[in-house]
Amino acid sequence: MTAPAAKSDALTADSSGPFERLLGLVADDLSLVNGLIRERMSSQYAPRIPEISAHLIEAGGKRLRPILTLAASRLCGYGVGSDGGTDHIKLAATVEFIHTATLLHDDVVDESKQRRGRATANILWDNKSSVLVGDYLFARAFQLMVETGSVAVLGILSNASAVIAEGEVLQLTTAHDLTTDLGRYDQVIRGKTAALFAAATEVGGVIAGIEADKVAALRTYGDGLGMAFQLTDDLLDYGGSSAALGKNTGDDFREGKVTLPVILAFKKGDDAARDFWRRTIARGKQEPGDLEQAMAYLRQTNALADTQEAARGHADRALAALKGFPAGAMRTALGEIAEFVVGRTV
Amino acid sequence: MTAPAAKSDALTADSSGPFERLLGLVADDLSLVNGLIRERMSSQYAPRIPEISAHLIEAGGKRLRPILTLAASRLCGYGVGSDGGTDHIKLAATVEFIHTATLLHDDVVDESKQRRGRATANILWDNKSSVLVGDYLFARAFQLMVETGSVAVLGILSNASAVIAEGEVLQLTTAHDLTTDLGRYDQVIRGKTAALFAAATEVGGVIAGIEADKVAALRTYGDGLGMAFQLTDDLLDYGGSSAALGKNTGDDFREGKVTLPVILAFKKGDDAARDFWRRTIARGKQEPGDLEQAMAYLRQTNALADTQEAARGHADRALAALKGFPAGAMRTALGEIAEFVVGRTV
Repeated sequence: MTAPAAKSDALTADSSGPFERLLGLVADDLSLVNGLIRERMSSQYAPRIPEISAHLIEAGGKRLRPILTLAASRLCGYGVGSDGGTDHIKLAATVEFIHTATLLHDDVVDESKQRRGRATANILWDNKSSVLVGDYLFARAFQLMVETGSVAVLGILSNASAVIAEGEVLQLTTAHDLTTDLGRYDQVIRGKTAALFAAATEVGGVIAGIEADKVAALRTYGDGLGMAFQLTDDLLDYGGSSAALGKNTGDDFREGKVTLPVILAFKKGDDAARDFWRRTIARGKQEPGDLEQAMAYLRQTNALADTQEAARGHADRALAALKGFPAGAMRTALGEIAEFVVGRTV
Repeated sequence: MTAPAAKSDALTADSSGPFERLLGLVADDLSLVNGLIRERMSSQYAPRIPEISAHLIEAGGKRLRPILTLAASRLCGYGVGSDGGTDHIKLAATVEFIHTATLLHDDVVDESKQRRGRATANILWDNKSSVLVGDYLFARAFQLMVETGSVAVLGILSNASAVIAEGEVLQLTTAHDLTTDLGRYDQVIRGKTAALFAAATEVGGVIAGIEADKVAALRTYGDGLGMAFQLTDDLLDYGGSSAALGKNTGDDFREGKVTLPVILAFKKGDDAARDFWRRTIARGKQEPGDLEQAMAYLRQTNALADTQEAARGHADRALAALKGFPAGAMRTALGEIAEFVVGRTV
């Protein structure tokens, strides 16, 4: 392993709050994770691989997923003391590699031009490189997992990878479909966010060797957190439950994305509302003033409040799942994160 | 597992020869592999996944890679008798899934329009679907491997996956580079073909529980076979060692691909020859008559004969690696395949 990287690597512009408290509890581990990531994203033969990987990995992402793995393993007493293992470091790096691989492929699929405030790899290099470097990082992730020697961990993360890819295909084929049912939409956002969150926390418990019901509780925590996180994202795109118009409000609307607020507003809307959603979302024909009209329909149908309630329900599930773990700074910090994701306003 | 598929699924237009003899020895196993592939390429939520997978998987590929896994495991006495295991079936399906995933991504990267005589998925559907369905199949491959419970197998196939992706990136960044050195070129074709051949045969030995030196020999066999196969492909694109112009001759030339014949001809060519290669391959400026001139340079510099000799060397390595295994129909068939790949004319 190379020398630990500066801790500030993982920090974002946020300067305090629940995320920083959680980060503070795993900062030393995270430095090792960052070092391992740098080491393993190298390539003996193809220098373009670390160039592209570094462009994305070092662009200042929050490292939330690897932090969850570190926190879950520490919550279960893994590697505490001088004879502590390093599997949590490897798995945290694994989780970040899988996340990065999916971002590279997502940006190709969505034809994105910006991520984390920088031009995307598919723009700076090309789609080909993004596809292949994503594949490389995915393979590297599996190599890292293999080093833990845990078939259980390999099973959890290969299942998560399948759910992620399936969710992406589902999203592709249900785009602009206003009649997407809630179960299907859950599966899309589970693939998009919650599957990797759930795997990230679950593997932390597995390597700590805790009992099966505790492992399941960690999985529930990650799933609840991820679902709450994604639903809140969907909500914030329409200004949050207060539906106040902000700088980035309406991006999903302009792109014709079918998210939970829209599904609910379409379902509960009258004929005029449904015609409006069919024109603006299904057919993508938008005019000035449509966003304001959309917000009005969202308020009328309680779609934003209902989305917030759904997010709150997932966060509550996450919180309840923590109850069986020892009280202490780590459990408190994980609980605060679950509260935070549904309470955030940006 | 679903009912075994018809054996003819795996057959190609060839009606006899070494490939068919090898196929005949594993035909029952291969039927089970085809059934498992069909079962596992399904998706609970996203019907586009099996549509695209089936388009490619059932288009009549030779199934050479899974056949190698089956043959290697049988050569080592795996699963013979009534208490035989099914890990070889799972791993053969795994290998085919990894191969299919790389083909889907390759076709996006190469902007291919046809494969196996049919329009590619990126043309029939779109690049997005090809990328995501490839990711899904890759994840499904890892899930299948996990079911064998063998960390060794997971290590071998995750390493192969990394070499494949690295080779693809390398190929992307060395395209049109006439000064590509031989070590680098070896790494490209190892990624393109030999890495998965080597892993396919190696895992057959691992699940049979044979000694480490025998496992290494199986790996050498697969690597030698794969390298010989790919070099012969490169050669055949210039009409083979006889340099006779055929129907498909010159595709690589027209696409400006830097393959071993061209690397050697450039290296050993005089100033006029080097200028010719720079114009036609590096800058891609081609005129009528250039292919004939290229063939003349290839003959003058012995580049085709030297490429054939390199392929022959790899096939000999493959053959030598079989020596420690019990004589019999399986060893004979595997040896014939190694002879066949360098002797073939199409």
